[in-house]
Amino acid sequence: MTDTNTLRVAIVGSTGYGGVELIRLLQSHPRVEITSVISSSSAGAPISDGFPHLTNIVTRNLDGVNPAEIAEVADLVFAATPSGVSAKLVPELLEVGLKVIDLSGDFRLKDGGIYEQWYKHPAPSAELLEKAVYGLCEVFGEEVRDVDFISNPGCYPTATLLGLIPAISAGWIDASSLIIDAKSGVSGSGRGTSLTSHYAEINENFKAYKVNKHQHIPEVEQVLTQVAGEPITVTFTTHLVPMTRGIMSTMYATLNGPYTEEDFIELYRQYFKDRRFVRIREQGVWPATKEVSGSNYCDIGFAVDARTNRVTIISVIDNVVKGAAGQAIQNLNLMMGWEESLGLTFTPIYP
Amino acid sequence: MTDTNTLRVAIVGSTGYGGVELIRLLQSHPRVEITSVISSSSAGAPISDGFPHLTNIVTRNLDGVNPAEIAEVADLVFAATPSGVSAKLVPELLEVGLKVIDLSGDFRLKDGGIYEQWYKHPAPSAELLEKAVYGLCEVFGEEVRDVDFISNPGCYPTATLLGLIPAISAGWIDASSLIIDAKSGVSGSGRGTSLTSHYAEINENFKAYKVNKHQHIPEVEQVLTQVAGEPITVTFTTHLVPMTRGIMSTMYATLNGPYTEEDFIELYRQYFKDRRFVRIREQGVWPATKEVSGSNYCDIGFAVDARTNRVTIISVIDNVVKGAAGQAIQNLNLMMGWEESLGLTFTPIYP
Amino acid sequence: MTDTNTLRVAIVGSTGYGGVELIRLLQSHPRVEITSVISSSSAGAPISDGFPHLTNIVTRNLDGVNPAEIAEVADLVFAATPSGVSAKLVPELLEVGLKVIDLSGDFRLKDGGIYEQWYKHPAPSAELLEKAVYGLCEVFGEEVRDVDFISNPGCYPTATLLGLIPAISAGWIDASSLIIDAKSGVSGSGRGTSLTSHYAEINENFKAYKVNKHQHIPEVEQVLTQVAGEPITVTFTTHLVPMTRGIMSTMYATLNGPYTEEDFIELYRQYFKDRRFVRIREQGVWPATKEVSGSNYCDIGFAVDARTNRVTIISVIDNVVKGAAGQAIQNLNLMMGWEESLGLTFTPIYP
Amino acid sequence: MTDTNTLRVAIVGSTGYGGVELIRLLQSHPRVEITSVISSSSAGAPISDGFPHLTNIVTRNLDGVNPAEIAEVADLVFAATPSGVSAKLVPELLEVGLKVIDLSGDFRLKDGGIYEQWYKHPAPSAELLEKAVYGLCEVFGEEVRDVDFISNPGCYPTATLLGLIPAISAGWIDASSLIIDAKSGVSGSGRGTSLTSHYAEINENFKAYKVNKHQHIPEVEQVLTQVAGEPITVTFTTHLVPMTRGIMSTMYATLNGPYTEEDFIELYRQYFKDRRFVRIREQGVWPATKEVSGSNYCDIGFAVDARTNRVTIISVIDNVVKGAAGQAIQNLNLMMGWEESLGLTFTPIYP
Repeated sequence: MTDTNTLRVAIVGSTGYGGVELIRLLQSHPRVEITSVISSSSAGAPISDGFPHLTNIVTRNLDGVNPAEIAEVADLVFAATPSGVSAKLVPELLEVGLKVIDLSGDFRLKDGGIYEQWYKHPAPSAELLEKAVYGLCEVFGEEVRDVDFISNPGCYPTATLLGLIPAISAGWIDASSLIIDAKSGVSGSGRGTSLTSHYAEINENFKAYKVNKHQHIPEVEQVLTQVAGEPITVTFTTHLVPMTRGIMSTMYATLNGPYTEEDFIELYRQYFKDRRFVRIREQGVWPATKEVSGSNYCDIGFAVDARTNRVTIISVIDNVVKGAAGQAIQNLNLMMGWEESLGLTFTPIYP
Repeated sequence: MTDTNTLRVAIVGSTGYGGVELIRLLQSHPRVEITSVISSSSAGAPISDGFPHLTNIVTRNLDGVNPAEIAEVADLVFAATPSGVSAKLVPELLEVGLKVIDLSGDFRLKDGGIYEQWYKHPAPSAELLEKAVYGLCEVFGEEVRDVDFISNPGCYPTATLLGLIPAISAGWIDASSLIIDAKSGVSGSGRGTSLTSHYAEINENFKAYKVNKHQHIPEVEQVLTQVAGEPITVTFTTHLVPMTRGIMSTMYATLNGPYTEEDFIELYRQYFKDRRFVRIREQGVWPATKEVSGSNYCDIGFAVDARTNRVTIISVIDNVVKGAAGQAIQNLNLMMGWEESLGLTFTPIYP
Repeated sequence: MTDTNTLRVAIVGSTGYGGVELIRLLQSHPRVEITSVISSSSAGAPISDGFPHLTNIVTRNLDGVNPAEIAEVADLVFAATPSGVSAKLVPELLEVGLKVIDLSGDFRLKDGGIYEQWYKHPAPSAELLEKAVYGLCEVFGEEVRDVDFISNPGCYPTATLLGLIPAISAGWIDASSLIIDAKSGVSGSGRGTSLTSHYAEINENFKAYKVNKHQHIPEVEQVLTQVAGEPITVTFTTHLVPMTRGIMSTMYATLNGPYTEEDFIELYRQYFKDRRFVRIREQGVWPATKEVSGSNYCDIGFAVDARTNRVTIISVIDNVVKGAAGQAIQNLNLMMGWEESLGLTFTPIYP
Repeated sequence: MTDTNTLRVAIVGSTGYGGVELIRLLQSHPRVEITSVISSSSAGAPISDGFPHLTNIVTRNLDGVNPAEIAEVADLVFAATPSGVSAKLVPELLEVGLKVIDLSGDFRLKDGGIYEQWYKHPAPSAELLEKAVYGLCEVFGEEVRDVDFISNPGCYPTATLLGLIPAISAGWIDASSLIIDAKSGVSGSGRGTSLTSHYAEINENFKAYKVNKHQHIPEVEQVLTQVAGEPITVTFTTHLVPMTRGIMSTMYATLNGPYTEEDFIELYRQYFKDRRFVRIREQGVWPATKEVSGSNYCDIGFAVDARTNRVTIISVIDNVVKGAAGQAIQNLNLMMGWEESLGLTFTPIYP
């Protein structure tokens, strides 16, 4: 970092949805200057060629991926690169002295073997997997302070873990009973073109995909296991919703005692009492994805069914903000010792 | 019925989505003539005033609701009326000698007390609740033959029950473990206007509603209990998807034995082997709502997770067809002793 | 054709949206048997692999493109192939004695030079361009009777020409004043994947494309010139609507006299009085795309503005049906001397 | 205004889309404090009851409409009230010394007779119509400085006028030839419920409405007439797009000379050279509504067709921001002598 008040950051993967959202959010961050927007595929072109909404806002051309050159202009890099790419790039960035916040899935799992099983890529080195701090801000916020390398959580895990951890920590729900029914908008799968992102195939359609096979499952299990202190395995279904942004995790668990909806609301409000980006809904009200759209909020609601002795926990985020770029900036703020919400105090866009 | 080959039918509630879909489907039914389209709210006006897509197709004016007059022109009535309305109207229709297929929820529950608890209306008479035959065609098809009065299943129960009954019947899944995560398009709540059907509130939004409180829950439980021979209670969440048509039920259950996906596929193909409107998917493939859109199909797929000893069953229908008008016509066919698929052999519309 | 009542047809390009819609519609055509579904890219695989909605409905595997083999099993071929491909394939199909209805743009323009200017492909032979009969059914229906080779109109031209020809023929509007503002759903650009069909780029977005450059412009001008007997040039803008199906052409012209909305309605009703697939709306009512969805209708409405001495003509179709597969079947019916609407009497799907 | 740096503002109509967007934007305005959010229909309730996205952000309860009480807590009022309501309320607000920015259509037309003809309400007093300054910022920005009462332009007029005024002013286009084909998302018609905002009626649908009858027509004509110095009458069609936010005006005019696309681009860049919220696209590129979504930008592109001697001008805005709340705040900034873009420097949200 320079001596000034401003941190110089570079964004690698600037032509993906995560990268372009980092640009949107960092444009109004008071202590950050974007000094390089980087894309291996489009280097040399103005970013507004591919993203006309940035016309007159980001006028610089895209740079290529060169760690040494990045280190000359930036203090920190957001790696909004695909899984498999980050695994190779991040070590080079760290090597030249850059701080790194990685948005891919490459450094979230501590066990390289599990990574390879779910991601089908070679795992990064055990040393780097160890070094990466998992930046689920509301739970591990203290651990990211002053570190050099943060692995930003996945979108599904963010919504899911924030919805489950207080109840798991309190021992209120049976950890062997967890069933997670998750739904995501299409932006979650990125800007790459395929039949599964084709408008005519997705519009007026609702579908399940990767049932029990999604690579975010071991991430959820790793963190829950850590929090619970015992091995936790979950049933996890991912669905695609005909919308662009938003994730909802609807989570089911058997109760360990006669806890009421009021009890859950109170428990969660206490757990998150100093964290402005988690909002707990009133009894009988459940959050909808649009109510957090464009913002860094995670909203959570509860239903307890005495008939079946189960709790249903509903958690929503904007997958591109809290599930990616927004949480990455929140991690930056925590890492730098700044106010957690710096540059992130957006009101959700409604309607 | 007249002496000819043609059954004369009237549709009450012709200006709702169920009614107008009955018109669409019955227009091409080879043995039915629509002799009256009836609406209490718009009597006297051409139906194409409110539904211009019927211009030049249905040119008659809407009639008022008068059972005696209906009995003069029709042999059978489809009552596509709201809950609470059918309860009062159906007895009058039966009284004048009409056959009735009722699409509301008023005659699905055998226990009037449970009806009143979930529907908040006074229940119909016990006698009529007893008389109504529950027309889940692929399960109770034999029972509707030759009866005068059929209660057509709800949209959520149709998708859910077809997805669960073979496994429950076979004893393969633990009936106390059932969790049903259901999602519906907006047409399911009808043509009435409210904030919950306002485009700007629903578009780019995914929300849960009536969690554990939906009036289709006791309908699902009643049938599962009947099939299983023991009381079954389910956890049931309903969600609203930003699309017009389609329901998916994602269902979770603990396995009673080491059953595989192949086992489930074989079990269900056997169970439904003579029923053309249920299609069982190949292993590793799950149905999407668009794949049944505009058609009377119910498509079902499976995922078995050995890690958690659970099966995930995914069932989709078009809520307006198989979940309402289409199944009602299928019931008509069975009632009349006609081929089950008469007038219903539509290919789904894709894309 | 065989001696029986049934025409054997093959569909080339069965894995595009036009091809798969031909399959949907021909499944219920009473005088047609589909004997081969053909795809160069997916030959050998079941069509339901790529289109699961056809599960249990079309169980045959896709065939390769071999004209001699096609001629053994079929009497007529629908070529639902891309521009450039049809130009090469159709001559081979005709050569082996097959009748052909071509859905591409390759044989619509009579002037090969103009074709090459707008399509950027080499034009087919002048002889074949001459031989192809342009099958705009409601206008040139007599000309397709008994021919062997029909070129099916484009989607934008169908909506536009049906909306303009009666007024142009009557001399009521100034042909030099024509401005056409056209809007299409995304299915119009096919199943190919690109950023312009990516859900997240199209949803909640409305955009213009190919302004004054769309290849359907010379097709519209050729037909209008033929009808008017003088050269007509149009201003034509194409827009992409965030929906799957549907085209609207909003057309503007200066009036040649004091014609009223009633006059236009009467003129058009007379012009199309024997054609069931064109519906003229009442005064003050304009058609919406959903009102023809899934059907072969073209609906037209008018607004005359005395303040500016202009008429606004609004014409809608389902681009996949009346703008492609439906009109192709209508052409088949006319070619064979059958009732024009055979297999096409679908009620639009609403909602 | 108090002596401090902060202006105290009240928002009447806080439970409509315009009002709630004012809240969103003003939350991050550095020189404004919202001191009262007012709703006649929901006074006394927390605003987050109806708008849960404001949970923990706006915690105050809604106030009733009482001008004297408003004057005690606020210096300026945004009246985001419906047409007809503002006409009665604004005089009372001015009477008690409040500054007013009115977002309704009630004070845009200078001629009360024309107002009554198009709006079907009694017009406000001639004196107030005269007093109201029409706040089309990029054109009349100088005139709003230091005034007490601004009438904020309509959404369609904003997109249309910014697209036409430079060319009209320059005399490059024939003012008698103007044809405007406009398209809007559904939020433009507000949060009121009706069949025309029902999701199932709008989704997968594109429709025209109020053809030649929209109340924004006289507003466009009044301003164009003023700019041109001669009476201008336009042909104007409004369409509804299945999306929530966004307006596109596609405008057609005959050229008065051999102007090229480059000429238009240069002309408009000059005209708007000091106004950051208008962005002129490169040649061959036209703006899409999503590229301005959530932002105060108006983006404009051109196509000149030498074949027909016409120019097509395409202009897009977010109807809720630049077409309502954003421009209202821009007017506030200009009125107060602040930097025009204060609190409005949002990057569009994409995707």
